[in-house]
Amino acid sequence: MRLADSSEFELIDRLTRRLTTRRDVVLGVGDDAAVLAPDAGTLLVATCDAQVEGRHFIRGIASPEEIGRKALAVNLSDVAAMGAQPLWALVSLLLPPTLEVSELDGIYAGLRALAESHNVAIVGGNVAGTDGPLIIDVTLLGSVNPDQTLRRDGGQPGDAVLVTGTLGVAAAGLLALVTAPGEAAVPPEVLARARQAHVTPTPRVSEGPALAQTGVVSAMLDVSDGLAADLRHICERSGVGAEIDAAAVPIDPAAGIIATAYGRDPLALALYGGEDYELLFTVPPAGIQTAIAAVAAVGGTAHIIGRLTAPEAGIRLVLPEGMTRTLEPTGWDHLRTGRENSPSGS
Amino acid sequence: MRLADSSEFELIDRLTRRLTTRRDVVLGVGDDAAVLAPDAGTLLVATCDAQVEGRHFIRGIASPEEIGRKALAVNLSDVAAMGAQPLWALVSLLLPPTLEVSELDGIYAGLRALAESHNVAIVGGNVAGTDGPLIIDVTLLGSVNPDQTLRRDGGQPGDAVLVTGTLGVAAAGLLALVTAPGEAAVPPEVLARARQAHVTPTPRVSEGPALAQTGVVSAMLDVSDGLAADLRHICERSGVGAEIDAAAVPIDPAAGIIATAYGRDPLALALYGGEDYELLFTVPPAGIQTAIAAVAAVGGTAHIIGRLTAPEAGIRLVLPEGMTRTLEPTGWDHLRTGRENSPSGS
Repeated sequence: MRLADSSEFELIDRLTRRLTTRRDVVLGVGDDAAVLAPDAGTLLVATCDAQVEGRHFIRGIASPEEIGRKALAVNLSDVAAMGAQPLWALVSLLLPPTLEVSELDGIYAGLRALAESHNVAIVGGNVAGTDGPLIIDVTLLGSVNPDQTLRRDGGQPGDAVLVTGTLGVAAAGLLALVTAPGEAAVPPEVLARARQAHVTPTPRVSEGPALAQTGVVSAMLDVSDGLAADLRHICERSGVGAEIDAAAVPIDPAAGIIATAYGRDPLALALYGGEDYELLFTVPPAGIQTAIAAVAAVGGTAHIIGRLTAPEAGIRLVLPEGMTRTLEPTGWDHLRTGRENSPSGS
Repeated sequence: MRLADSSEFELIDRLTRRLTTRRDVVLGVGDDAAVLAPDAGTLLVATCDAQVEGRHFIRGIASPEEIGRKALAVNLSDVAAMGAQPLWALVSLLLPPTLEVSELDGIYAGLRALAESHNVAIVGGNVAGTDGPLIIDVTLLGSVNPDQTLRRDGGQPGDAVLVTGTLGVAAAGLLALVTAPGEAAVPPEVLARARQAHVTPTPRVSEGPALAQTGVVSAMLDVSDGLAADLRHICERSGVGAEIDAAAVPIDPAAGIIATAYGRDPLALALYGGEDYELLFTVPPAGIQTAIAAVAAVGGTAHIIGRLTAPEAGIRLVLPEGMTRTLEPTGWDHLRTGRENSPSGS
């Protein structure tokens, strides 16, 4: 069997199911980041995510600085989704010999700038040559209080499902970037905003720890594969079902305009588009206002989009007319489509 | 300027010279691994190193299990060179779609087996597709007592220079593997040993912490680029010169046989071959016997090969006849030659 015939999730399961562990591993493979206990105090979280030229970014569409920023941003998002503070990064570069050093300088400048703005120290890394595409593989370490780690597996039936910010705009940006310009009339400021969301997403670095500190959140992850696929991760790990109200999904206005201009369904972009890097989380009803206030206190927004149910009910989308249908996890399957992330790795 | 025109060390310096740091970073870019202080207790070390198909390994020459083992082994070597115990690994895989899943299973089995044998937990990672070569990028975290971290910058004039094990056998293995078989008559058991050293080196996981615990070692790193190049790293970071006795360099017997059979200089393989993954370290004279005994106590060997000198004397090789010549750092420069490591990264 070739990799092209295997799904990413099957593959990760196949590779990791026989792993042994250690006593100081609080949480291993299967969440946004691993949780490690160097000693009795603060816990350490660790994650890594690679950006591959031609799959996660295209040189010429994204600037070198944007490529560098995104390589760190996707990791910041994973650490935030654990409720953790980012601390230290290692940057592994796989470099084609034809790459201009000035372009690499730009990539590193983007990485450095985003690291500095979040007080993250780049403490090491590696450079190696490759005859293939340029690859930036970042490992990010962070810390979290032992009682504030937010995992994927704590959701309970009855919990509300919330998401920060808006969805679909990164996918709309990609749609507009890969479609011939002029094919649809979209205001330039809308295009610029969508492009920005795609080439250099904003991780919810403040919202993650703020939500963790409330103590009311039962499960959390970041939306990298698309709401539908990532909700499924929470449901599978928590052993629950879910019901999402289509009318409550916060479709980004720019995503709405672009989808309409290109004849696509805005809701589909928001459900399946991916790379939103928003936080998807669940909260028992009594904690909803606390959670929303905590996000607002750091300048963000959060919306209730549905609720967790008994597992037998599956994962459903409730349409405005009251009809329900199964919400398929049709996000991006990275090995097949050529776009990847680390949803069930770390 | 293209990357092909830049040396690896120039490049790393260019990228990292403007990095800012944090108070909890004890040691950042520029050693075998970063040293981090999550809190007041044990220090954390972190390193990453990528193995690239066609550059660090060739599918078909090395088995999948051997490729997996080596990907972890080179990182274990970096952690050992800090005097640290390895704890946790993250495995980032960049996978071409044509790769057979069974081959990937083999690679992961090799990784897992070596991890288990050193009580290392694989706690996370990432999978992404690539249209380029297969790449295995491992991040390894470990712990070390604050007063036992072995860096590159503590060497003093007068310190003895020692190295564990023997040198040149991995390079001899590569030489034999890439040269047409039958071109030189080498006993099969010698070839097998050299091949093994090249495709799956043995990191000095016990020797590193054992040396750290003696308290007598002033500087240490692992020999990945070749003795001459790695000695230069110690000299530059410590601000010293060095004198190596050619007759004292422990040339591996298999390297000697293969070099002679192929008309090469055995000493050159030992000085410049690289990928030995032995530990190169310095010790004030009063501590030499303690250090050698500590290595012997964990089943290893260590040899005195020279001494550190004042910086003005440079780095010299003392030939058996008593003549001296400058020891050029002609190891592998990875961006130019197509073989890499992370000598001045981490």
